[in-house]
Order: sequence, then structure tokens, then C-alpha cells
Amino acid sequence: MLQLDFQKNPDGLVPAIVQDGKTGQVLMLAYLNQEAWELCQKTGLGTYWSRSRQEIWVKGKTSGNLQKIQEIRVDCDLDTVILKVEQVGGAACHEGYPSCFFRKLNPDGTLTVVEERVFSPEKVYAPKPPSQS
Amino acid sequence: MLQLDFQKNPDGLVPAIVQDGKTGQVLMLAYLNQEAWELCQKTGLGTYWSRSRQEIWVKGKTSGNLQKIQEIRVDCDLDTVILKVEQVGGAACHEGYPSCFFRKLNPDGTLTVVEERVFSPEKVYAPKPPSQS
Repeated sequence: MLQLDFQKNPDGLVPAIVQDGKTGQVLMLAYLNQEAWELCQKTGLGTYWSRSRQEIWVKGKTSGNLQKIQEIRVDCDLDTVILKVEQVGGAACHEGYPSCFFRKLNPDGTLTVVEERVFSPEKVYAPKPPSQS
Repeated sequence: MLQLDFQKNPDGLVPAIVQDGKTGQVLMLAYLNQEAWELCQKTGLGTYWSRSRQEIWVKGKTSGNLQKIQEIRVDCDLDTVILKVEQVGGAACHEGYPSCFFRKLNPDGTLTVVEERVFSPEKVYAPKPPSQS
């Protein structure tokens, strides 16, 4: 199995850019430890290390919005990966948007929401949405 | 100016996913500190904190392959950004490829180069290419 450089980040994690395999839209950034990296390859499902919960996190286990991995890319120095996925349910963000990057920064420092919600978080998560990363 | 959450990562840096504004191709992952974040907005050029050199890094200052920022997106918890850029020279990677993610991981653990080189690193950098991140 390809060895990533987990020592580059002080927390020993490798960032994974999760991208829609069809449209190229960047859905989220998550983090891998060795176990998550192996699980991604064994199960074919986007599986990360949750920094907030300090546990392995199968993305979509609660919401049903699993990420089916279609392709894995690695960068020049093996300290970042891209997971190209099929996003089940069409929403990667726990706030109900297709992507976590649903806000654009304006020159005056304000933010504009540029995506439409796919689901209402309160209907999917109970009692409250988990922190994502 | 919008305040990012620089405390999420133990090194106090925020990852910036650099994406081609036109094609959506993910070019590289770089890191921002407060100074780099401000410079991105002031200058409109992809400007990062080089973890290897421990200094502000205007991407393309050596190679000429500057990144002109077209749009900035922020994620749900303000600990990651996307910079949509015009990549001058067509190559973001110091190895001469359009993207740092020029290799695909095969199921057997081997890597396949899936992009074509735009330039030869030895012709652009002297005496040797700088580490990127």
C-alpha cells in the first residue's frame, strides 16, 4: 500500500480534498490517518479521521450521504490526496449544502451564499449536526 | 477582513485548495497564515506560507507561474479556503505538471502519471526546484 507522508503536519494527518468525480466541484476537506487511508482503499467509501471527535469517521454514516470513491490522486510530495467521489444524496456539507464551500468572499469582507441547500440539517441530524472536521 | 480559524491546525495554518477558475481542476494545496491571507486579498496573487522555507511565498515568483485569484470561497467552519485562480504558464507544480496531483493511485498501490509536463523543472529552477509546501 502506498505510504503517505503523515509527518508533514504536526498532528500526523494528511489532508484529503474531496472532489465530485463528475463535475469537479470541491466538496470538502477532510483528514486521513493511516487507518482512514487504509479504509478508504479497502471499503471504497470516504473515511476520515474526525479531528473534533477524535475517531474514525465514515462520511455519511449518520446522514446516509456516503462518498463512493471513484479515483484517488496523490500530490508531488505525498502529503495531500484528492478523493474523487460520487456524493450520495448530493450534499457533502453537514449544513445541507452540496459543498462545504458554499460561501463566496466578497471584496468588502462579507460572505454570499452561492449554493442552494439540499437538506435541512435539523431534519437529518438529531439532536444536532456533528462537527465535520 | 474575514477572520479565519487559524487555531484548528496545531501549526496555526489554514489549508488553501487552489483550483483552476475555468476548468475546476485542483492544482495544489498550500497553507495560509494571517499575513498570507491578507496578501492574497490585497495583491490578488496566490500567496502562501511555505512550511519548508518558513517564509511568505508568492507562488510563481521564481518560475513566473503566478496565480491570479479570481474568487475566494470559505468553508462552513472557516478553517479551509478555496482559491479559484488563473494559473499563469499553465503549470502549478514545481515538477512541471499542470497540477501537483498528476499521479493516480492504482488498486495495486502503484502510481500512474496522468498529466503531461508543461515544463522541465531543471530549465526553470536553478540550481534545484524549491519544495512547494
